[in-house]
Amino acid sequence: MGDLTSAGRLRVVVVGAGFGGLEAVRALARANADVTLIDRNNHHVFQPLLYQVATAALSPGDIAWPVRSIFRRQANVTVVMADVDGVDAERRVVHADGGLAFPYDILVLATGATHSYFGHEEWATAAPGLKTIDDATDIRRRLLLAFERAEIATDEMERRRLLTFVVVGGGPTGVELAGAMVELARHSLARDFRRIDPAAARVVLIEAGPRLLPTLPEQLSVVARRALERMGVQVLAGTRVTGCEAGVVHCGEDRIAASTIVWAAGVVASPAGAWIGTERDRAGRLRVEPDLTVPGHPEIFAVGDLAGAVNADGRPVPGVAPAAKQMGRYVGRVIAARAGRRKAPAPFRYRHHDDLATIGRRSAVVAMDGLGCSAGSSGVPPTSGI
Amino acid sequence: MGDLTSAGRLRVVVVGAGFGGLEAVRALARANADVTLIDRNNHHVFQPLLYQVATAALSPGDIAWPVRSIFRRQANVTVVMADVDGVDAERRVVHADGGLAFPYDILVLATGATHSYFGHEEWATAAPGLKTIDDATDIRRRLLLAFERAEIATDEMERRRLLTFVVVGGGPTGVELAGAMVELARHSLARDFRRIDPAAARVVLIEAGPRLLPTLPEQLSVVARRALERMGVQVLAGTRVTGCEAGVVHCGEDRIAASTIVWAAGVVASPAGAWIGTERDRAGRLRVEPDLTVPGHPEIFAVGDLAGAVNADGRPVPGVAPAAKQMGRYVGRVIAARAGRRKAPAPFRYRHHDDLATIGRRSAVVAMDGLGCSAGSSGVPPTSGI
Repeated sequence: MGDLTSAGRLRVVVVGAGFGGLEAVRALARANADVTLIDRNNHHVFQPLLYQVATAALSPGDIAWPVRSIFRRQANVTVVMADVDGVDAERRVVHADGGLAFPYDILVLATGATHSYFGHEEWATAAPGLKTIDDATDIRRRLLLAFERAEIATDEMERRRLLTFVVVGGGPTGVELAGAMVELARHSLARDFRRIDPAAARVVLIEAGPRLLPTLPEQLSVVARRALERMGVQVLAGTRVTGCEAGVVHCGEDRIAASTIVWAAGVVASPAGAWIGTERDRAGRLRVEPDLTVPGHPEIFAVGDLAGAVNADGRPVPGVAPAAKQMGRYVGRVIAARAGRRKAPAPFRYRHHDDLATIGRRSAVVAMDGLGCSAGSSGVPPTSGI
Repeated sequence: MGDLTSAGRLRVVVVGAGFGGLEAVRALARANADVTLIDRNNHHVFQPLLYQVATAALSPGDIAWPVRSIFRRQANVTVVMADVDGVDAERRVVHADGGLAFPYDILVLATGATHSYFGHEEWATAAPGLKTIDDATDIRRRLLLAFERAEIATDEMERRRLLTFVVVGGGPTGVELAGAMVELARHSLARDFRRIDPAAARVVLIEAGPRLLPTLPEQLSVVARRALERMGVQVLAGTRVTGCEAGVVHCGEDRIAASTIVWAAGVVASPAGAWIGTERDRAGRLRVEPDLTVPGHPEIFAVGDLAGAVNADGRPVPGVAPAAKQMGRYVGRVIAARAGRRKAPAPFRYRHHDDLATIGRRSAVVAMDGLGCSAGSSGVPPTSGI
C-alpha cells in the first residue's frame, strides 16, 4: 500500500495538530515511517478549556503547547507550520503556503471543525465563536471591556445592555461558558468596581432545541438547567435565534440588547473534504470506511471532528475530544501495521466513557456510561468532555 | 490648595497606571482624598520584564496585573479604563473617551514614555519597539515565525535572513533582549527543529554610541559586551542606523537582511505635556519644580518618565522604574500633606540604588551605588532595573 521511500519507510503526512492528529503521530512513534505533521499554528490547543480562557480564569499559555516540543523526542516526526492549500490526491502531494509540496504515501486528515452560522456568516462579527486561542482572547477582551464601559456609563439602559451577555447554543461549550461568565461576574470581579455591581450582570443562554446538553441523558439536561438557573443564568430553551447584529440578538419578534454575544451553536467540519472531492454529510464531515479511510482512497484517513464515523451499531461517533483521540490512535495503529506489513487491526469502534460538563466552580454534570448523575465539586475545576 | 469636595476631601485624578501612578495612588491610601486612576488599559505592566515575554520565556499574564484588583481594598480609589483626550487646566477637568469628564483639585500625570524613531516614524512597522504587552507578543510572533519559515525555506540566503535578528539600541532593554534572543535560539528551541539548527541564529546588537549601557560605569559596558559576545551576539557599537524597512536595516552603506528588527533605541515622553501646554525638553519631558509640580500649576504634578526631574546636584533623574516609583511615592506624600493641611515634605531627591542588567540566563551586570561589578547568576533570572 503506497510507495516506499528509498529507505523502505512509509511517508506519512498528518494535517492538523488537534487531539486526533497528535494521537495519530504518537501512535506512529515506533513505526517504519517518516511522519510530517502540518498545522497552521505552532501550538496544540486543549480546546475543552477554551471557555476558561474566554472568561479570564486561565491564560492562553495554560492551554496551549508548542507542537515542536511535544514531539522533540520522537525522531521520526518533522513538524511544519504552514497553511494547507489543497491535496493532489492523484499525485499524492499536499500543497501548502502557495509553494510548498509534501509528497505522501499515506495522508491523515485531522483538520477538525469550525463554527457554523447555518448560512448566516454575516453574524460572525457580532457573535464570534470559540474554537481558537484568538477567539478566546477576543471574547475575554469584549467581556472585560463591557464591565469597564458599564462602570463609566451614565445611561441606565446603556449600562444594562453592557452588562448583558448572551451565549447561543446549549451544548457543553454553551453551558460551560454561561456558567463561567456568571462566576466571573459574581466572584472574580465582584469587589473590583465602585459604581456597578458586577454580580448584577445578566447571562442569557439560548438553545433552539427543547433542552440543554441534547446528547446527554434527559435527566442531566434538567439538572444542568437547574444548576445554571440557581447561579443566575437565564435559560431560554426552544428559542431560535433569527439574527445577530452588533449588540443585538433577534429571536423572532424578540430582541435582546447585549454587549457580548458568543456563538456556541453550530459546528461544521473544516473544508478538508473539498481538497479530495469526497462525499460529505450535511455537517461537512467525510464519509469514512470502518477503518476510517476515505472511500476509494485506502491511502487517505480522516479522524476527529472531520470524520463522519459511524459505530457498528449505526450510531454516529460524537464530536468530542475522546473520540478524536481514539480515532487518531486507531489510525496510527493501522498505518504502523501497514508499514510493518502486519495484519490490519479490526474496524474502529468508539468506546464511550463518561460525559462531563462543568457548571461554574462548584457543579458538574457527569454521564457515566449512559448513566446520568450530577455531582458537586470544589477546588480545581475539572476538565470537560475529556 | 484646590477646592475641596462637599465632604471636604481633595479630588485627585491620576493619569497612568505604570510604576509612578500606582505608587502615587498607594501613598494616598490614608489621605483625606478621593482618587480616580485613569489608564487606557485595564492592567499594569511590569515593563522591565517585557523582553522575556518577547522571547517566550514568560507569558503576558506573568507580568501584567489587573489595576482593579491591585486597588480592590483601597476604598478611596476609583479605577477608570479610558483614553484621555486632553486636560482643561483652567477649569481643572480631564476629558476622556470623547465624552467623559473628570474634575480634579489635584492632577498627577504619569503617562510615561514611548519609543522615538528620531523623526523617522515610518520605521515603526519594520522595527517595532517594546513598551506594551501587545508589542511583546508581536515581537514574539515574529521571532517564532522566523524559525518556522526557516525550517521550510529552500533557499540558503533566505534561510540566513530569516535567522538573523537585529536589536537597535544598546541600553538595558537592548542588551537584555539580545541576550534573551540568543537564549531562545540556543536553549529553548535548540532541539525542536529537524532541518535548521536554531543555535545558528545570528543576533546583532547595534548601538550608535561608543559603548553599551551608556548610563552605567564604563567598566560594566566592557563586561556586558564581552558577555554578549561570548554568547554569540554580534555587537556593532559606534554604528548609526540610517534606515529600517521590511527585512532590512541600513547603516550608512551597509545593509543587514533580518527577519526581525526590534527598536530599543530612542525614548520620548508621552504627549501629556501638550495637554497642559507646558514647557518640555528635547525628549518631550515636562520641566518640573523641586516638588515635581509643573511650573505655574501647583495643582498639577508630573512623575516617572514623563517628568524631566533634576536632582539637587543638577544631574537628571534617570528614566528607570525605581525613579518612577520614588517620584510617585513622593507626590502621594505631598498631596496627602496638602489634604491634611500639614507641612509639605522637602523637595524630591532621587536615591540611587543598584543598576542591574541581565544578560542571558547566567550573567548580569550590576552597578551598586556607582561601583561597577559583574556577577554570574543561575536559576530564576533576576529582574532588571528594579
